[in-house]
Formats: sequence, C-alpha cells, structure tokens
Amino acid sequence: MPIPATRQMKLSMFLTGDGNYHLAGWRLPHEDRERGHGGCDMQQWVEFGRIMERGKLDMLFIADGGISGVSDLETLGLTSRIDRLDPVTILSALAMTTRNLGLVSTISTTYNEPFNVARTVASLDHVSLGRAGWNIVTTASKDEAQNFSRTDHLPHGERYARAEEFVDVVRGLWDSYEEDAFPRDKASGVYMDAAKVRFLNHRGRYFSVRGPLSVPRPPQGHPILVQAGSSEPGINLSARVADVMFTSQSALPEAKAFYDKAKSRCDRFGRSPGDIKIMPGVLLFIGRTQEEAMEKYERLQSLIPIKLGLQRLSEGLGGVDLSGYALDAPMPDIAANAVRVSSVESYVSIARREGLTLRQTAMRAAAAKHHLTIIGSPAQIADELESWFVGGAADGFNVLASDVPGGLDDFVDLVVPELQRRGLFRRDYEGTTLRDNLGLSRPLLKEALASA
Amino acid sequence: MPIPATRQMKLSMFLTGDGNYHLAGWRLPHEDRERGHGGCDMQQWVEFGRIMERGKLDMLFIADGGISGVSDLETLGLTSRIDRLDPVTILSALAMTTRNLGLVSTISTTYNEPFNVARTVASLDHVSLGRAGWNIVTTASKDEAQNFSRTDHLPHGERYARAEEFVDVVRGLWDSYEEDAFPRDKASGVYMDAAKVRFLNHRGRYFSVRGPLSVPRPPQGHPILVQAGSSEPGINLSARVADVMFTSQSALPEAKAFYDKAKSRCDRFGRSPGDIKIMPGVLLFIGRTQEEAMEKYERLQSLIPIKLGLQRLSEGLGGVDLSGYALDAPMPDIAANAVRVSSVESYVSIARREGLTLRQTAMRAAAAKHHLTIIGSPAQIADELESWFVGGAADGFNVLASDVPGGLDDFVDLVVPELQRRGLFRRDYEGTTLRDNLGLSRPLLKEALASA
Repeated sequence: MPIPATRQMKLSMFLTGDGNYHLAGWRLPHEDRERGHGGCDMQQWVEFGRIMERGKLDMLFIADGGISGVSDLETLGLTSRIDRLDPVTILSALAMTTRNLGLVSTISTTYNEPFNVARTVASLDHVSLGRAGWNIVTTASKDEAQNFSRTDHLPHGERYARAEEFVDVVRGLWDSYEEDAFPRDKASGVYMDAAKVRFLNHRGRYFSVRGPLSVPRPPQGHPILVQAGSSEPGINLSARVADVMFTSQSALPEAKAFYDKAKSRCDRFGRSPGDIKIMPGVLLFIGRTQEEAMEKYERLQSLIPIKLGLQRLSEGLGGVDLSGYALDAPMPDIAANAVRVSSVESYVSIARREGLTLRQTAMRAAAAKHHLTIIGSPAQIADELESWFVGGAADGFNVLASDVPGGLDDFVDLVVPELQRRGLFRRDYEGTTLRDNLGLSRPLLKEALASA
Repeated sequence: MPIPATRQMKLSMFLTGDGNYHLAGWRLPHEDRERGHGGCDMQQWVEFGRIMERGKLDMLFIADGGISGVSDLETLGLTSRIDRLDPVTILSALAMTTRNLGLVSTISTTYNEPFNVARTVASLDHVSLGRAGWNIVTTASKDEAQNFSRTDHLPHGERYARAEEFVDVVRGLWDSYEEDAFPRDKASGVYMDAAKVRFLNHRGRYFSVRGPLSVPRPPQGHPILVQAGSSEPGINLSARVADVMFTSQSALPEAKAFYDKAKSRCDRFGRSPGDIKIMPGVLLFIGRTQEEAMEKYERLQSLIPIKLGLQRLSEGLGGVDLSGYALDAPMPDIAANAVRVSSVESYVSIARREGLTLRQTAMRAAAAKHHLTIIGSPAQIADELESWFVGGAADGFNVLASDVPGGLDDFVDLVVPELQRRGLFRRDYEGTTLRDNLGLSRPLLKEALASA
C-alpha cells in the first residue's frame, strides 16, 4: 500500500431513502421520466455505486433511523423520506457490483440485539471482502418506540449508556475467534480449532451475551465504526470507539473548535487523535459556474412548499410547535422551549448570524439542516473544502448530494478532479479494504479474556 | 405465464453454513484444495447460485438458527456448522448475481423484532424484484437465549404463540401501503399519497406496533412464507399462513399421512389445500450408478468420527445424555427421557423399523437426521421422488446436497434432466417472481383496518 506524499482528504457519500438529500431533489428531471425512481429501486443504487467508484470515493454511507413525521402524512408525502429499504440489503447487494467502495450501514443500538448486529456487520464485511462499516445510532425519533412495543422512547442519556455497552458487546463478539481458528483441514478433519475460540461471557447492565459469534473474525478485524452524535455522550462514544466521526457544522471556527474538542477527547480513552477521522457533512449545489450553481439551488428551493420547510425546522428543533410565530418576522428565540437536541443551538445561531426570518430559517433547514452548504463552481467548492481541511476542521467530508444521480455525477466529474489536481484526494484506491483506504490499522486481537 | 400441462414438482435447495449438508461433505476434495472454502466465502455462494439457476430450481433456502454444541467445542470443530454468515447478507448479494432463483432466509421470531424482520424481508423482495421468502423459525436451541440477554429459552408453546402474533404483525406491516401509494409525481410534488397509507396499530399479547413500514408494498405483495415445524403448533402455523411447508419425513406412508393432515388442516383457517406446497427434505447421495452412489455415501460416512455422530443424535433427541448406553446394542427407547421435540418419535421409529443399534442410529442421524435419504443413480432417485410426488406425499422437495459444489452439480446435471424427461419438472422458469414459479397467487391487500 503506497503511502501518499501529503495528507489527503477522505470522502464519504451520504445517501438515504431514494438518495436525494435535498427534499425536492427527486423532482428534478432525469432521463425524461415523469416519476421518480424511489429508494426501493435497486438498479438505481447500482448506478450510484458505479459513479462513486469512478470518483474513487472512500465509502457510501446510508443514513437511516426511525420514520419521523407520520403524524402529518400529507407533508411527509411531499418527500421521499418514507421509501427506505433496510440499508444492509442494499449494501450486501452492492458488495457484488462494486470492488473498492466502503459500505457503511446505519443500525440502531436502541431497537436491535447486539448479537444480531455483530453478526450482520461481520457478514457484510466477509461478503464485501473487508469493506463494511457500521454507523452507530441510538435513534432520535421518539415515535419509533411505537414500532417496537415500547411505551416510551429511552431518554438520551440512557440511550447512550446502552449504546456504549452495545458496542463493547459487538466488538467482543467480533473477537470470538483467533485469526487462524479455522484451519478447515480436509486431511485431519479439523474445521475449527477449539482452542482458538473465545467466549465473551459478557454480563452488564443492559446485556448478557455468552458468544461465540457464528462468523469468523471479519476481514478488517473490526469493520469500521462510525458515530455522528455531537452531544457530549456522542463525543465520548466517538472518542472511545469510532474510526470515523460525522458531524454537522455550518461555520469554520465552530467546526475547528469541535474538531479540536473531539480529537483531544481521544486521550481520555487511551487513543490518539489520528485514530479517528472527523468528517463534517457538506451539502453541495454544484454548477460549472457559480451562476449555474445558484440557479440549481434556487430551482430546488422553489420546489419545496413552505409547510414542508416548517415541518423540517420543527423536527430539527425537537418537535417544537412553530405555528404561533409570524413567518416573516425574525427567527424567534425558541431554544428554551425545545427538548434537548444538539441541532437547536446550531439553527438559532445560523439565524442570528445571518439575520434570517422564520420563513428563511425554515427554508434553510429544509435545504440542509445545519450542515455546511456550498453553492458554487468546482473551484469554489474545492477552495472551501480545502480551507476546512487545511484549517484543521476536517479530515475529510461526508458529502450530501443535493440530487441523484445528477448531483453525484457532478461531484465525481467536476469536484473530485479539482481536488485531485490540488493533490488533496487520491487518484486511485490505496488498498482493498475500507480500513486500507482510510489509512487505519487493523485492530489486533486482545488477549483472551475468558473461556467457557 | 404459461400453465404447465401437468402438475410439476417444486424444488428448493437447502444449504446452510458452508453449504455441505453431510457433516463430512467439506472434507471431499475440490479443485485440489487442501482446505475447505468456508461459509464466509461469498464467491462460493455465487457459484452455488449459478448452478441452481442452470437447474431451474425454484429457490435457495438457507437454514439458520442458534449455535448448538458449543458446550463441546472440540466435537463442533469437526464440522463446518459454526461458520455461518447472516443469510440475509448472502441472499441480498445473490440477488445481484442471479435472475430467477427464489431467495429464502431463515429468521427467528424469538430473537428479533417484527418491525425489523418485516422491513428486511420486504427489502430483499424489492432488491431481488420479487424473489424473497422468509422461513419462520422459533429457534429450537436452548443455548441461544444466552446470546440474547435471556435467562431462559421460551418454552415450545410460548415460542409458537409469539410466532403466530409475530407473523401477523409482519404481514400487516407489508400491507402498510396500497399498491399505488407512491405516485412519485414530479410535476405535482406528491411522492406518496397520504390517503393510501395504513397504520397497523397492532396491540397484542407480545407486541405493540403502530406502523407504517418504511418500505413500499413488496413486489410479491407478501414475500413467500415458509414453515418447517412439524409439531401440532407448527402444523397450525403452516396451515394458517405458510405458502411452503418443509418437513422431515423418512418413509412414504408416514409422509403421506403427514401431507394429508397438514393439507386438511388448511380448512380450519379458511384456506384451501392448494394454498400450501408441502416439500419434504430429501438428502441425496448421487452416482452415475447405484454402486458409485453407495461408494460416495460410504466414503462420506467413514469420514465422520463416532463422537460426532453421538453428539448429533443427542441434539436431535433434545439434548438427552447418551453416554450410558452400549454403542452396539439395539437403539434404546429413550423417548420418555427426552424433552419434547418432534424429532424423537422419528428417530426411534427409524431405529425400530430397521433394527438399528445405537451406533448405527447415531451414524444415520449424523448423515441425514431423519430426512428421506436416497443413495442411488439418477433414475433411482427420480423413481423415489416420483413415487412420493405421485403418491400424494409431496408437492416437491427440499433437496439437501450431501456436499457442495459436487452434490449440487450432480443434482442439477444428472437428476434434474431425468425429472424433466419425465415431465415432472420445468424446463424453464414460468415467471419472474418466486410466487410465479411456485404457482401461487399474489395476496390481495385486505380492506383497510384502521387509520391513525
């Protein structure tokens, strides 16, 4: 694996549902079709994978989580958000149609069993020959409890306490076998060497799990762990276990402060800052010129009804009721009313900084939540990404395509070559596993802890 | 879809772990390799899929369940049983490398949430364009509880009560949307029609699930439901909901009695006998001549150590301790000692009928459990399958390959052509979905039950 001469960006592509990040992305014309493709169209995902490998991107990350907004189905029906296959099925299928792309699935620790998650992600790693990742989420949507026989959603702190233990069980199960535990020797008849099996025998507050897993150690040792929660418990979980941290940041100074905070937190858990790649989300509206990019942005924004924008902002503020506020007055100070979600501060600070009205804040929330948003030419986009990367705010980016496949094609065909020319991004994959391409070492197997 | 002139068999291929059904199947030479491939070798599964489609088989069924036998790892290590990927990852990947083959995954109702299972199987149906099936199991291995934070395994009756409710929740979630609920109309901006969404609002003894699912109605309406438990609760569950029933039968008269019993049970649940395809398992040792087949059988049997045979028989008898019995005395009557499992009666009756010793019964159990086992030439195998099929004991078969890929190739290249010559099996696929090929109609959406 050749070592790049200079530090280079890592690039993840963030897709969910039907792939369009912008709420109106699905409405753009594509091949003269009057109807959108839909998230359940696997052939579309195959096309996305092909485009991403053309651009040498590190990984496809499929976001997932509870279905929010079902209390207002009409508004939800203006989006493609409810049309979402199980990411593991899509990614397993893509393992057959791609060769280098990392395949990262979101799976909730609140509504699954660690044994099943350990097995599924290990299986994806085997099927893809070392390209799997798991984005650890605790499911923020409180409605989701009603799909899982719970009367109440777990409070934030308890969700994270459960997640910490859940992740430890999963990592422990991935270490169920030593690397050479499966001789599969036809002559002696020894398929598995009993001395190289490790029972986990975990007994904790939330879980009791004996092990071993029914799957040999994954090709990457541990598939890549991703974490995106930026709350204090989220930062701690990332600093302790994550290989990649996604974060939602809208301005460079705050992004750099967050980067420094998360990196320095690693020390508390005996890890070094280089062990974790911090990748802010960035929503791109790409044109050959800035004017073309702005036209695209305005066209997409004009296709979002204001009621959808308000619903999106309300959701981002933890479900606060916005119906009593004047649309064209300055964005009200509603932080005190909202339940505790990490988005609140960002929305309010964006509105204050830019002097936005409620309507404008809602439309901004509908466009990008509070991610860094760049509307520009390939050179302008590369400038901004470079300034964050060189300025110590990012190790790479989690790219949100405004629309698919158009925005994805534009990123790969216009922006990636510009980053390559500047020496900021690879011209070819460094290795065969996601870990190789991210430049992360393979976790060694710890000393055996216990046996049955 | 052309209708075949005469009734034809349905054929499923039963694979698990590394694909070898016979415990020593992995030890046969293959391409001069000294080491076996292993169940985590996806390229091997791709090859299996290719062979099965060459034979126009209806479906690949991947068996799964808890890991039993971990209390004696050395014996377990003589088998390939612990090397088992999550079947959904394998089948999703195979959806990309096959075009007609049905893809049936085993998933337990005891250690999963119905919302997750409904979503995963619906997703597999979308990814494969209508080729998914779900083999409903309640997990017989009592050790499995220890991997899921339970102190005790649920008793048999309660597992089935939970399974009944679980399946109803899954089917209800598959009906979350009317067929035309997703106009995805770019001009009007209506992606989903809110009036065509159905909340399940299920509140039962085991589950409370609101819905809707986050996935449009599956291409097959409902993916194929398979059930293999032959206990009374198992027969009831099959008769009420299953499209396909697997069963383990060793002799024609009992198989016919079972077939009649299960078919006639359909009436109790308002279904007709034609709604369910009964497919006994059949383990094949195939040779060009009977002599060649017998050589293969004996070679494979000689590769199984007796301690593995005894462990297998003990497991089939519900974990009864066999160490106190003489190996070469007649098979003891141990039905009274065993916990209630449906296998007990069959093992004891086989041993009585054929006058087997404990050693012989153990080696038989190691070879085939109590499935119909045929050691013979293609014509002999076709004769036996035909006699069961014509004799009213089977609508088709769930074929266990003694070894892979050898036994699979032999079935497709030697036995299938013989069945085709006799007009007993298709020469090409009838349709594009698993439902089409099984000759089962697509379930209509029931009247809306409730709304939010």
